[in-house]
Amino acid sequence: MTRVPATMSAVLLRAYDGKPESVEVAEVPVPQPGPGEVLVRLAAAPVNPSDLMFMQGLYGFKKGLPTILGFEGSGTVVAAGRGILPRLLLGRRVACAAADPNARGGTWAEYLATRATLCIPLHKDVDLDRGATLLVNPLTAWGLMEQARRGRHRAVVQTAAASALGRMVVRLGRKFSIATINVVRRAEQVETLKALGAEHVLDSSEPGFDDRLRELCHATGATIGFDAVAGETSGRILRAQPERSRLLVYGALSQEPVQIDPFSLIFERKHVEGFLLTLWLRRKNLLSQLRTAGRVQRLLDTDLTTEIRAKFPLRQARTALAEYANHMSAGKVLFVP
Amino acid sequence: MTRVPATMSAVLLRAYDGKPESVEVAEVPVPQPGPGEVLVRLAAAPVNPSDLMFMQGLYGFKKGLPTILGFEGSGTVVAAGRGILPRLLLGRRVACAAADPNARGGTWAEYLATRATLCIPLHKDVDLDRGATLLVNPLTAWGLMEQARRGRHRAVVQTAAASALGRMVVRLGRKFSIATINVVRRAEQVETLKALGAEHVLDSSEPGFDDRLRELCHATGATIGFDAVAGETSGRILRAQPERSRLLVYGALSQEPVQIDPFSLIFERKHVEGFLLTLWLRRKNLLSQLRTAGRVQRLLDTDLTTEIRAKFPLRQARTALAEYANHMSAGKVLFVP
Repeated sequence: MTRVPATMSAVLLRAYDGKPESVEVAEVPVPQPGPGEVLVRLAAAPVNPSDLMFMQGLYGFKKGLPTILGFEGSGTVVAAGRGILPRLLLGRRVACAAADPNARGGTWAEYLATRATLCIPLHKDVDLDRGATLLVNPLTAWGLMEQARRGRHRAVVQTAAASALGRMVVRLGRKFSIATINVVRRAEQVETLKALGAEHVLDSSEPGFDDRLRELCHATGATIGFDAVAGETSGRILRAQPERSRLLVYGALSQEPVQIDPFSLIFERKHVEGFLLTLWLRRKNLLSQLRTAGRVQRLLDTDLTTEIRAKFPLRQARTALAEYANHMSAGKVLFVP
Repeated sequence: MTRVPATMSAVLLRAYDGKPESVEVAEVPVPQPGPGEVLVRLAAAPVNPSDLMFMQGLYGFKKGLPTILGFEGSGTVVAAGRGILPRLLLGRRVACAAADPNARGGTWAEYLATRATLCIPLHKDVDLDRGATLLVNPLTAWGLMEQARRGRHRAVVQTAAASALGRMVVRLGRKFSIATINVVRRAEQVETLKALGAEHVLDSSEPGFDDRLRELCHATGATIGFDAVAGETSGRILRAQPERSRLLVYGALSQEPVQIDPFSLIFERKHVEGFLLTLWLRRKNLLSQLRTAGRVQRLLDTDLTTEIRAKFPLRQARTALAEYANHMSAGKVLFVP
């Protein structure tokens, strides 16, 4: 077995205030895997929008401070706690998550102790850089589209369509012959998405947006929606959808409450619910999890590709965060411990 | 067959502005029942909160103006359009509804032509006054509680609990051994509901309300909620409920959009949906509709009783509306054409 040192470097959060000086690189003890857990020696870990929201205290949960940052990453399992699954994973390369209120620590560190059920074994032809971004975007996009496919929806309407995840939804829509209606907030994003092959792209800042959205949703049958924005946007999408539609909220970029016209709910039998990757995965049995993870990995070079823009060592945490926050849709920033 | 005159008195709405002078009593043609429809000679029709919202243009739909007001009532079927059901109903006393975007006319008139499927035959021991308020409150309360019973929810949390419908939910809760957590907006309503036998009553204007509501919802297992208020209230209720809870919005007394914390949806797997009596009824087959209507009618003297405070002829429409609007929770006002 690999020798595990007693301490490691990690990127710590000291306060939920979004200030650069509240993020600090420190030497901390390497965690011990408990029952059902594994210890992963991390190779790479991206910065995602949810990390920035978490640092500002705007995410759905808080961890006790100080806490190690980072919700997903990749690496090699170097120690296993009690249980069959941890032992099966020993020595394997995995994608792993710490995106959970109960997760100890985070992925912006040299080691992570995490539940074995939140680790996905990587195929031999998926390198650790690509594996690091497997969960939050590709697997979520897949999970959302699985809802559309299982419910036999003919079309999907989505907000924040120009995001990394939104683009994956566009490509999966083409793959599965499900039309996508893509809502963006700026004119230049319309061109980006059209270049990607998206047929229907609407800019919500344009006059007449609501009427056009409604026409398109009815014409294509967009009875399911994916919303990463929340606020008034959720209500505008739901209002535009046909009767009996579902809206899945998976993010809250607007940092506002979801606002819904009560009459969309009462008279048109529409539903609003949430979507969270880890809860969706947990509802699957192990075999189905592995099958899904396998299919997603086979698409990492094509439909579910993630653009990596820059890599930083942990000690440059503040620089890396500033770089990412300035151009969030220009590709991912990776930490390489 | 009964002789039907060519014209009738009816209470008309001229503008969706909530002004008393936009309501007018006029002589209009008696409608003809079309295929699948019956003509009801109306005996009584109540004023409900939804009528007041409709008159102000704040309800979920508008009808072309001028339109006859009134969403529910009772009477005798005096003519039948084509179809088996209309002919079966001929000569019978029924409760009837016009609470639908497609409904022609309303119940504040001498006659109503309406779909036979929106008519409920009255038992011989239910008089026309009590039959007039069968649908909007008793049947809705029953429909909501049916959701709680079918989903095997141990407890229900409801807003506007001091309303006529809210009180019915309290009594049905006792009948079916489902705990009710009753949220009201004024201190004096707490006593009213406790006198009725409600165990848990919370005043949302009290400090510490949210924490107490959360404790109660978790302790009793209030995984289903009924909300007639919308606005911020919806989000406060949903936040207080345990994981995987459902909130059914059936009204919007606050006249505001439903506001939901996105994290209630995403991390706690909670759902928001709507409830509408006519849609719920339409999902049942005829036999099940009649069985439900039968059970509800047997409770009209006890658990599902409605207090009638005053009766007015149609020509006193403005007086009746003013009387009702001034004390909405002091019993129903009936029109008797």
